[in-house]
Amino acid sequence: MASLDLAAIAGTLEGLEETILYKLIDRAQFRRNPRAYAPGESGFTGEAEASLFELRLLQQERMDAEFGRFEVPEERPFNRDLPPSRRAVVLPDSGLAAVDFERVSRCAEIRGRYLALLPTLCAEGDDGQYGSSVEHDVYALQAIARRVHYGALYVAESKFRDDPVGYSGLIAARDRDALLERLTRPEVETAILDRVRQKVELAQQTVNAALRRLIDPSTVVEFYREGVIPLTKAGEVEYLLQRLS
Amino acid sequence: MASLDLAAIAGTLEGLEETILYKLIDRAQFRRNPRAYAPGESGFTGEAEASLFELRLLQQERMDAEFGRFEVPEERPFNRDLPPSRRAVVLPDSGLAAVDFERVSRCAEIRGRYLALLPTLCAEGDDGQYGSSVEHDVYALQAIARRVHYGALYVAESKFRDDPVGYSGLIAARDRDALLERLTRPEVETAILDRVRQKVELAQQTVNAALRRLIDPSTVVEFYREGVIPLTKAGEVEYLLQRLS
Repeated sequence: MASLDLAAIAGTLEGLEETILYKLIDRAQFRRNPRAYAPGESGFTGEAEASLFELRLLQQERMDAEFGRFEVPEERPFNRDLPPSRRAVVLPDSGLAAVDFERVSRCAEIRGRYLALLPTLCAEGDDGQYGSSVEHDVYALQAIARRVHYGALYVAESKFRDDPVGYSGLIAARDRDALLERLTRPEVETAILDRVRQKVELAQQTVNAALRRLIDPSTVVEFYREGVIPLTKAGEVEYLLQRLS
Repeated sequence: MASLDLAAIAGTLEGLEETILYKLIDRAQFRRNPRAYAPGESGFTGEAEASLFELRLLQQERMDAEFGRFEVPEERPFNRDLPPSRRAVVLPDSGLAAVDFERVSRCAEIRGRYLALLPTLCAEGDDGQYGSSVEHDVYALQAIARRVHYGALYVAESKFRDDPVGYSGLIAARDRDALLERLTRPEVETAILDRVRQKVELAQQTVNAALRRLIDPSTVVEFYREGVIPLTKAGEVEYLLQRLS
């Protein structure tokens, strides 16, 4: 069974941070490229409606679905109506309650927050590198979604097991605000934000700024503060609300 | 037109280094997982022959081909018989001669070198994370191939333009050894290896080693010394041999 020790879970979340930071820095090497996000501008034959970004995310998830990615609780897709897994995936017992993981999913908000981040993350303008831009978008989105949903599921289960009586009352009352307050640890959030800032600074310390675009650590810190952390907690609330069913 | 200034090309190659290093570090977070590379062990229904690694690389490249990736000179595929691009890709004039880019491709050797690197890069054993392992393999392979072929094409063209008379005689004589010697710059190779070592060290400086596997900088330096650099030069020779046709 996966460890439900809160320190071990926090460790996994910390490890996932590097992947997110690397992928954001990779995306920032290309300009904002608004055309890659414009409906009907994909350049794809037979695709009059979707943007290149939407098509890439959909095709990636169709492939990933066939490889069994979304059999894993913390891997939630951004699209619906994906093909079934073609692969027999054997998973260790997660230790999670048998909830509907799709109700925990924050993918729609993650996507919105990420797209809103791009104008700050990337240099303005169009460098024609649409394919590379949306490829990196998809990798960044998947890394962010994995982090948010891993936290939402495993942190919530761990906290519930540490305090089943306290949480059960709030769950029975369906008191979202009180659940959110009970699972919030401001000192942990501050430590995460400090660590993210330090990691972005150090990851870029040796980079030749003439060759590679540097990103502002505050951009990533704000994305964590306004996006990753509150969406993780919103997911925790959704998990807990199903916990006693 | 893309710049054929050798300093600008070297700058692009240096920028691609970070992407390779990040992706190797990401792959090293999973164990070696030999089963993911074993023929017939993919767990895929209807796939009795291929390994999970082979299937992932093929499916990724089929998708990428439809998105037009391989229309770009330095993006060479590892598989053959891929579908045509479904997307109208407008490329800037590369400045390259109209050669057969597939004859420049070193993909087969890159793949072999990369698979031989895994036992050193990853911890031994099986953690069951086959899907994640091969996903990261594919990203690492694509980053390495982009670096090798970008160098092979643009460095060779730039060197040819700086010394067309000197190169043309060797090309006409089809003297591979003399071409290799003429395009070799030992002091540049030493600088690349030193920089790679430093980047791996610094990229890992802030990583919590209890949570994330660290890789030995020497492993990556050797991979550059024995793989990336000689394969780039072999690709340069293949480009030059076609340069006058």
